[in-house]
Amino acid sequence: MLGIELQRNGLIPLSRQVYQALRDSILKGRLTSDDVLPSTRELAKQLSVSRNTVLEAYEMLYSEGFIETSQGSPSRVVRGLLLEQRSLSLKPIEKTIDNSIKYQADFKTGLPDISKFPKRFWLQLQSKASEAMQTELWGYSGPEGLPVLREQIAGWLFRRRGISVNPKDIFITAGATQALHLLSGLFKKEDREIIIEDPCHIGMFRVLQESGYNIHPTPVDEHGLRTELLKANGASAIYVTPSHQFPLGGVLSAGRRAALIRFARENKMYILEDDYDSEFRYSGSPVSPLYSMDPNRVIYIGTFSKILFPALRIGYIILPAQLQSKWRQIRTYSDVQNPPFEQAALAEFLRLGKLDRYVQKMRRIYGFRRQLLLNSLEEVFGSIPQPWGDSAGLHIALQFPGMCFGSDFFRLEKEYGIRAVPVEYHSIIKGFHQDKLLLGYGHMSEEEIRKGILLLHKFISTFGYKE
Amino acid sequence: MLGIELQRNGLIPLSRQVYQALRDSILKGRLTSDDVLPSTRELAKQLSVSRNTVLEAYEMLYSEGFIETSQGSPSRVVRGLLLEQRSLSLKPIEKTIDNSIKYQADFKTGLPDISKFPKRFWLQLQSKASEAMQTELWGYSGPEGLPVLREQIAGWLFRRRGISVNPKDIFITAGATQALHLLSGLFKKEDREIIIEDPCHIGMFRVLQESGYNIHPTPVDEHGLRTELLKANGASAIYVTPSHQFPLGGVLSAGRRAALIRFARENKMYILEDDYDSEFRYSGSPVSPLYSMDPNRVIYIGTFSKILFPALRIGYIILPAQLQSKWRQIRTYSDVQNPPFEQAALAEFLRLGKLDRYVQKMRRIYGFRRQLLLNSLEEVFGSIPQPWGDSAGLHIALQFPGMCFGSDFFRLEKEYGIRAVPVEYHSIIKGFHQDKLLLGYGHMSEEEIRKGILLLHKFISTFGYKE
Repeated sequence: MLGIELQRNGLIPLSRQVYQALRDSILKGRLTSDDVLPSTRELAKQLSVSRNTVLEAYEMLYSEGFIETSQGSPSRVVRGLLLEQRSLSLKPIEKTIDNSIKYQADFKTGLPDISKFPKRFWLQLQSKASEAMQTELWGYSGPEGLPVLREQIAGWLFRRRGISVNPKDIFITAGATQALHLLSGLFKKEDREIIIEDPCHIGMFRVLQESGYNIHPTPVDEHGLRTELLKANGASAIYVTPSHQFPLGGVLSAGRRAALIRFARENKMYILEDDYDSEFRYSGSPVSPLYSMDPNRVIYIGTFSKILFPALRIGYIILPAQLQSKWRQIRTYSDVQNPPFEQAALAEFLRLGKLDRYVQKMRRIYGFRRQLLLNSLEEVFGSIPQPWGDSAGLHIALQFPGMCFGSDFFRLEKEYGIRAVPVEYHSIIKGFHQDKLLLGYGHMSEEEIRKGILLLHKFISTFGYKE
Repeated sequence: MLGIELQRNGLIPLSRQVYQALRDSILKGRLTSDDVLPSTRELAKQLSVSRNTVLEAYEMLYSEGFIETSQGSPSRVVRGLLLEQRSLSLKPIEKTIDNSIKYQADFKTGLPDISKFPKRFWLQLQSKASEAMQTELWGYSGPEGLPVLREQIAGWLFRRRGISVNPKDIFITAGATQALHLLSGLFKKEDREIIIEDPCHIGMFRVLQESGYNIHPTPVDEHGLRTELLKANGASAIYVTPSHQFPLGGVLSAGRRAALIRFARENKMYILEDDYDSEFRYSGSPVSPLYSMDPNRVIYIGTFSKILFPALRIGYIILPAQLQSKWRQIRTYSDVQNPPFEQAALAEFLRLGKLDRYVQKMRRIYGFRRQLLLNSLEEVFGSIPQPWGDSAGLHIALQFPGMCFGSDFFRLEKEYGIRAVPVEYHSIIKGFHQDKLLLGYGHMSEEEIRKGILLLHKFISTFGYKE
């Protein structure tokens, strides 16, 4: 009935053959949204295979997000998965009145899915926690942040990252961007030199540039920063993303971690460790922060924008004691403090264990979308794009051997309502990553991912981005 | 019964004699909190004066905050007005565990009274306005601030300050401190020179210092900045508080306003106009902002921290078109944006006309406290301290001829739990304002003001701060 033909003497396991046949049917539109699959017992009987074989195939389909199952009901094809390929046409988009772009396929990186966030519950929590706040907190409450939040973050870091930290060493910021912006004021004024990874988040690069730093880029490969290429250059600090390199996605290997710490010690530098999205790891064991290796030399930067929602504007840093009084001064003379309401709400969200559960839920969803993105790529592009880095975070770096994505590509795809950022956009020294694109998927629905990949494919094949 | 003796052939009007006698009774403790005054008719009969004479005396007492009246009830002495002088002893305070100071008399400047703010109503408004917010606003919404708030502020500025401004020229900030911090990044990088008033808010001075500026102080007198002393010094901007000079309290005179604008034009400078507390004026006509004189050269800085509550962290600037794109960049690469919840609440508070009414109410309260402070000073110190500047704002600068308040005074008074900041603390070139103290009163209850003045007097007479 499903037209599945098995090769019983082939090298491919039967379960994989069943899986591939069903996936094919879904992707080709023979099975569409909400279609019911036969029960495992029934299909096993039809195909004359063991029930376990079918169960395994269904599990693969489930874990990759093609079907959904719930206790007692039959398995069904997920809604919005298949898109009518025919209806998709590649055409320049019209500008809106206010000159903003309405993207047809927006693979922007670093955006969480705000549609899944329990907004109403959060607002109730915020209101209740704020009502219970002492009146003094409506006045100035100091540049450190609310004590109750600093305590909750210490607990969170212990549970999730294995970091044991005194709440007094945690300083609340208005996000990770502000953390870096203000940290850049902590170090030597006269000759501002800093080492960063290349490629590196262009926004963070600009933060340092705006602060008047001379920036010394050091190349990155699939294992993160190439520490063997580090040169001191009189720098007072080095900015890294060791848990999930942005944008390439590598985890800094153990040997390089040790080398980096050694290098910083020898040259009396601080390491700014930006741990922007390590909550979301889909395989492998969790990566221990650099911070644990040398809390006196590593300044840890965390943020809740990527976990909860960007408008929250709450991040934090863990600061060595010798930098704390200067930090207080810098924060006071830049924007004084965070407002207390969001802080009180977040503290309560943490205290109730809601954040732990929310992260767990979203990791499943993001993992699913990542897998769907990879499946769609394979299906639509064939086997060309190679994923880089670890299975983590809200974006993926893809290598398209033989292709060349530069500023022309970036400009033109925008005209067609597509945003897939070339890695070159985040490169300081240009020319080393022209065959790579970044696809953010956290904020996209399953349908948007599928449609987006189809559009991207049409665009690339129409304009032919060959070297 | 009240022991009032009138001199019928004296030069002092009878109503003033009745007022003085009653005030005396209150200040000396013969009439205490909640004591009921005789009706005007009754007292007029007792004293054999016209009822109008008594009415006038009662009105003076009322407007200075000594008595309260409400429709249908007799006039009463205000609660908490009189303090038992005997119980007040000047002694060093004990430090708290966390090394913070519990002040006995805290005349800190620039603090509004947060106890009067309708907190519960605000939180309900914030919750409702946030629930109604589009989901996109939980993501990144741009460095400008919420459009609805920018529109409401434009309306507010038109109503209250006579400024006609396009909402698109208004940019939300995380307060006035941040506004100055980021504005300092807008001008020439290489040689950072800026002109400021001297004395000037030391916090704002530090903001500019942290940004690496060379600061050129220009003296201030009772009419604000002495524009005849302005020298260009290659500066790209000049920071002023023309509506109510901080700390001395003068309003920049019309002639000097014209001179300042001329000077800025001739030297191609921007004027940063900090309008930090002009909502609270207790006499005279409102002062028109400099901004109206040259919107292309004046950057107007406003804040809601002093009007509502400091933890709100919302201010704004009005920016000339030619600086807007650079501003967007600077804000993006410093802390991205304000959180949306407080913005949505403030927009609604404005839309409902609540801010207008709240300002009206608080102006009456602050005006009352200012008068009480002046009365207490006269009563306790005699006629020595001379108030400087305009009747406005949340603080007053007082000159004590022949006294000398420097860092010794500041340090020692702290040990006795007193905070009355010497003007010298805010002076860049020291030695010109040693006989002046700043007393903030906005956040103090009537009892705290009375008690504070008594303590301050005891402290000054004990340690004798003579030149």
